[in-house]
Amino acid sequence: MSRVRLSYQLPTGRTLFTNISCTLNAQLTGLVGHNGIGKSMLVRNIRWIVEYRLCRPHSLLKQTSRSPHMSRHFEQATGLCESRDPATEGFVFNQTMLRIKDPATSLDFYTRVMGMTLVRRLDFPEMQFSLYFLAAVDSDQLQQWSKDITERTVQTFSRPAMLELTHNWGTESDPEQQYHNGNQEPRGFGHIGFAVPDLAAACERFEALGVTFVKRPADGKMKNIAFIQDPDGYWIEIFQGSQVPDALAGHTAEV
Amino acid sequence: MSRVRLSYQLPTGRTLFTNISCTLNAQLTGLVGHNGIGKSMLVRNIRWIVEYRLCRPHSLLKQTSRSPHMSRHFEQATGLCESRDPATEGFVFNQTMLRIKDPATSLDFYTRVMGMTLVRRLDFPEMQFSLYFLAAVDSDQLQQWSKDITERTVQTFSRPAMLELTHNWGTESDPEQQYHNGNQEPRGFGHIGFAVPDLAAACERFEALGVTFVKRPADGKMKNIAFIQDPDGYWIEIFQGSQVPDALAGHTAEV
Repeated sequence: MSRVRLSYQLPTGRTLFTNISCTLNAQLTGLVGHNGIGKSMLVRNIRWIVEYRLCRPHSLLKQTSRSPHMSRHFEQATGLCESRDPATEGFVFNQTMLRIKDPATSLDFYTRVMGMTLVRRLDFPEMQFSLYFLAAVDSDQLQQWSKDITERTVQTFSRPAMLELTHNWGTESDPEQQYHNGNQEPRGFGHIGFAVPDLAAACERFEALGVTFVKRPADGKMKNIAFIQDPDGYWIEIFQGSQVPDALAGHTAEV
Repeated sequence: MSRVRLSYQLPTGRTLFTNISCTLNAQLTGLVGHNGIGKSMLVRNIRWIVEYRLCRPHSLLKQTSRSPHMSRHFEQATGLCESRDPATEGFVFNQTMLRIKDPATSLDFYTRVMGMTLVRRLDFPEMQFSLYFLAAVDSDQLQQWSKDITERTVQTFSRPAMLELTHNWGTESDPEQQYHNGNQEPRGFGHIGFAVPDLAAACERFEALGVTFVKRPADGKMKNIAFIQDPDGYWIEIFQGSQVPDALAGHTAEV
């Protein structure tokens, strides 16, 4: 390993190392410095440091624009890291957590209106809250869940696309309490979204069930995309995957 | 179909029908009423109405406590709808949308630090925003994505666990602008979460990369669960599925 020269500005704004430069040969090398200066951190993580030197998004993007199939990304954008850190293999985008005021109301909504299944409930008496983990799984896939509660915990925290609802005890009986859906100031979180097999049928059904619409498919500029609200007012986008290209047509610019 | 008697209070608070009662036999039946009174809605949705009469969570819960394998849920809770509406088969929990200040910074974080892949970028010049859809997929699964851009749009909006980042143009150059992560007042959205194959290794790496921790695995009451922050301050829970049962031990109450 030679010429490790590091001056990396991390995305959090913190500079980890500035202009550290050295040549490491296949011989025993010592590192001397004051306590706390970062020796251990440097040595312990030198594997990562070397790997992250491979991340030069701008130069790589130029290459991949000529040979797009070489990129691990399917589109271009500033900031993309082209060389994947092997340590991130096996990372699963597992869950999205929303606080809810009243579990009886939210569980009714997500199991009846949205068809989800409660796979794990966790009550924390000491800390006075409960968690409800819901999955959107078709009926014929229910047998994939373990009947063993410990194993089902592992499944819940390992598979993608779990909705985690957090209930802080007592909110349901406090008339003043309500949660913020992120779409008024201060904004941040926007929505969760569900793909449905038939958007028209789904929206007709939501209508019949009295679900609140933020946007019906025919409203606004973007047709064939709907937004409904859950009992806490969180937005849920509803769309049919096969219709999305048409819905986007005329609104997007290919880059 | 007989004795349809409906008085259903919807989760949104709206009463759809009150005490509608009728007997339908296998013969042609007429429905007479003023314009706008709800005839079309009633007839059009009578299939749903009948199905939703099957949703009696409390009585069913009593049954399932004696025969748990009959339930489509794996835990009990007030509000659960036991009888799944067939119309919800095929619903996919597809996406979670977060607004981001600066795509260069956030894409670096999610592709380099979290290892995600940008599968679809959508720019909306007229409305001055861009969307970035990221998936956590292992390297060997990248070939499952279509090279055809239209088909990849359909895939993006059909599969589970997409992270959608929304960039309203200009926020990145406005020093005053920042988004709200939902964990200070007004609260609502809590976090997204990633399962990782090795929590200790993942956290050591996050540490080395200068990622901000909200909670390290050893901190607080719940060991072996970590929280980090993305560039906008959104919380990301990090855990190893196989460790979660032990992490929960002593904190949860089985119900």
